[in-house]
Amino acid sequence: MASNPPSEASAADAQRQGGRAPGTQDAEGDRDAVAHRARGLTRPRAIVVVTGSELVRGERTDRNGPFLASEALRLGLEPARILIVGDNPHELEAALREGAEADACLVSGGLGPTHDDRTVEMVARALGRSLHVDDGLESQIEAVSRAAAERLQRPYADFQAGVTKQATIPDGAVSLGLAGTAPGLLVEHDAKVVVVLPGPPPELRRLWPNALETDAFRALLSRTQPPGRRVLRFFGVSESAVARALAEAGGDGGGVEATICARDFEIHVDLVVDPGAEERADALEAALLPPIERWLFSRDERPIEEHVLALLRARGLTLATAESETGGIVAARLTSIPGASDVFLGSVVAYANEVKQAALGVPAKLLEAHGAVSAEVAEAMALGARRRLGADVAVAVTGIAGPGGGTAEKPVGLVHLHAEGPDGGASRELTFPGDRDSIRARSAVMALHLVRRLLTRSRDEDA
Amino acid sequence: MASNPPSEASAADAQRQGGRAPGTQDAEGDRDAVAHRARGLTRPRAIVVVTGSELVRGERTDRNGPFLASEALRLGLEPARILIVGDNPHELEAALREGAEADACLVSGGLGPTHDDRTVEMVARALGRSLHVDDGLESQIEAVSRAAAERLQRPYADFQAGVTKQATIPDGAVSLGLAGTAPGLLVEHDAKVVVVLPGPPPELRRLWPNALETDAFRALLSRTQPPGRRVLRFFGVSESAVARALAEAGGDGGGVEATICARDFEIHVDLVVDPGAEERADALEAALLPPIERWLFSRDERPIEEHVLALLRARGLTLATAESETGGIVAARLTSIPGASDVFLGSVVAYANEVKQAALGVPAKLLEAHGAVSAEVAEAMALGARRRLGADVAVAVTGIAGPGGGTAEKPVGLVHLHAEGPDGGASRELTFPGDRDSIRARSAVMALHLVRRLLTRSRDEDA
Repeated sequence: MASNPPSEASAADAQRQGGRAPGTQDAEGDRDAVAHRARGLTRPRAIVVVTGSELVRGERTDRNGPFLASEALRLGLEPARILIVGDNPHELEAALREGAEADACLVSGGLGPTHDDRTVEMVARALGRSLHVDDGLESQIEAVSRAAAERLQRPYADFQAGVTKQATIPDGAVSLGLAGTAPGLLVEHDAKVVVVLPGPPPELRRLWPNALETDAFRALLSRTQPPGRRVLRFFGVSESAVARALAEAGGDGGGVEATICARDFEIHVDLVVDPGAEERADALEAALLPPIERWLFSRDERPIEEHVLALLRARGLTLATAESETGGIVAARLTSIPGASDVFLGSVVAYANEVKQAALGVPAKLLEAHGAVSAEVAEAMALGARRRLGADVAVAVTGIAGPGGGTAEKPVGLVHLHAEGPDGGASRELTFPGDRDSIRARSAVMALHLVRRLLTRSRDEDA
Repeated sequence: MASNPPSEASAADAQRQGGRAPGTQDAEGDRDAVAHRARGLTRPRAIVVVTGSELVRGERTDRNGPFLASEALRLGLEPARILIVGDNPHELEAALREGAEADACLVSGGLGPTHDDRTVEMVARALGRSLHVDDGLESQIEAVSRAAAERLQRPYADFQAGVTKQATIPDGAVSLGLAGTAPGLLVEHDAKVVVVLPGPPPELRRLWPNALETDAFRALLSRTQPPGRRVLRFFGVSESAVARALAEAGGDGGGVEATICARDFEIHVDLVVDPGAEERADALEAALLPPIERWLFSRDERPIEEHVLALLRARGLTLATAESETGGIVAARLTSIPGASDVFLGSVVAYANEVKQAALGVPAKLLEAHGAVSAEVAEAMALGARRRLGADVAVAVTGIAGPGGGTAEKPVGLVHLHAEGPDGGASRELTFPGDRDSIRARSAVMALHLVRRLLTRSRDEDA
């Protein structure tokens, strides 16, 4: 079902080697066709057009397409394609013509003051509309530009052409507000809408809700039935085992669409539930879960670090980390959550053995006897972090991220983890496939889940 | 030129408020048109088609499109569009028909063993080719599948249908080798090529070079002239100042195409140089650099952490970090580089004040007198890390990442940094705009650049 899974899950998993729900292929194909037909009938079609030469050349990864597509899905539209094009006017016009055939065409980028920002002009051409200077808009943009001119101590005359250019809009277009000097726009045509938004993601996200408030977009949404969404998050089970559980539960279809994604080394199952299919979704969940429920850790989208912080907060405990191989990733993930300072005290990133000794009190003899990558040192690091940083709980990671440094006995990918809390500890030894980034990322996820397990201890997971 | 710059650079920059090279708009428009025409004449056109329902719904961000597009550009092809579609057969077929019009259509995903993996079937349909079972391919896939069956302890019969499905290819297709059980394929038609690759990025990257070795792709590449590429990396200067320097240097065009991107809080200038335009590129560089050369830190693509490690290594120095607000990000970035352990010893992530005292020896009085976010505490943290971890150089970061915790006097975004080495120290106080993630990421970049400046001290940057 997932056709672009991340590398390691895929390489490690039997799925791509024929192990995915074998024997159920025809049934799956049929179900899928049914789901698509059902969707095709009920959901207006949306096309996302993203502009930017640096995006179409792969110099930067687009963030707006995924955002607008997920918004379309949430609203009950069917995101049919995301189309990334550069500044070339012919390519841009062709893309916008295709987009304008959909019920909703959501466009980002190319709204700047210079003439290579051609989106608005090409939208007008694609829709066969004339352009005009909007006086009200021109006054607004002029005000912003005069302030910028003053701040930059340049004559306003330098800005005049850009102001007029940005106030020039297709006939019938509605302004969605300014981002800098660029207006977002909505143009209605044949009960369809074209929404034009600025390229910088925060500005796009700020103006997007204004599009939903327009009469034209409201009219479009009156024809949609936003689907429900259910989320199941697993850790420690393979993607193919989850796929098999889904197939054996009868699979999706009948207004329930399931996707299984290996993501961030967890397995995420998302159910998109058409209105009226809630009972079918309940039945599917009830049949799907029993064989894999022990690996279920969440029914919401919070990342694992947020679960860990919440578990600690609920029990009034503090946390510290001791990291060698992960080099601070676990601490960085924990502190990415606002309010982490309530429970997270800090970390010792002990990359050098001397630091393991000096800052964590790992005995030199232990390092000599077992090596830095060992269960013994992982435990000593966790105990040291707990004591030295004064935390109730500590988790330690030591391993070999590669590409160098591996031996026959201790290969690249070998990782030892230890979590220690007031009621005792838990250890793990794993060997992860993949490259340096992947081994480090996966070790960090494992460390967070190990703390979760230590704090819950309710399920005997074999992760 | 950059139509999708990151938020903070954009919000902070005068560029989007009319400050971008004012008065040069018409000239820029003309130059751009010239560049596009020149490219249009010389470069065969490439279209990238990425398949995956989770991608078109925005549930996951595509990595294959940017990779294939940048490869196309490197080879002298013109990446015209990246098109992301789901498993819906009608959408997929339409996308492949569009792709097949280009000189090169590069496709990823949808090669799995089940019937909802429809890429190969739809490629055949788009090209009007029949499908056949390739006997040699079937033997290869069977061997892989039998091994998988044995490993999974399932009967091989379960896999048979998938094997036959994956060995079924369009007439005239050439195998590019297997990824799991899925073959990559190349189909030639009318001196054009369609390349079909697996969705998992590492598998796609592994099979991609095989496509370049085929006779058909070689024939296509014989019509291209791969451009040269020059890279200039700046830190501490605004995007609009770089744009102005470019415009005042005469701008791009004449076989030299310049893009200016604010990326990771640095300003990256990339010059794509058509064969024969090297002198023009030299002249542009020579005219462009003088006003902004003091902010130039690199002429290659290595990330700043790699520069920092190389500078330390060259001088035989070791490094430690002391991080509060960045919570381990600086250490994680440094240790992302293989071989970092030569010079990077470790970090104390001192999130709690108690940890600042216990692990870094920051005096309680200092914390009381100035607060944790202060120049004095940043300096004490750096000195403490240097001493406690036994490093030659240490850098410390303390700040308020938000969204809470700000005051009128010390607002969200306020960051104090201090780097200390054998020859003295350097401090910075900054207030960054943006959200928590952005403030943290920017603080980490600033910390790395502060170490670079301390180690070079050759330029008096006003960053």
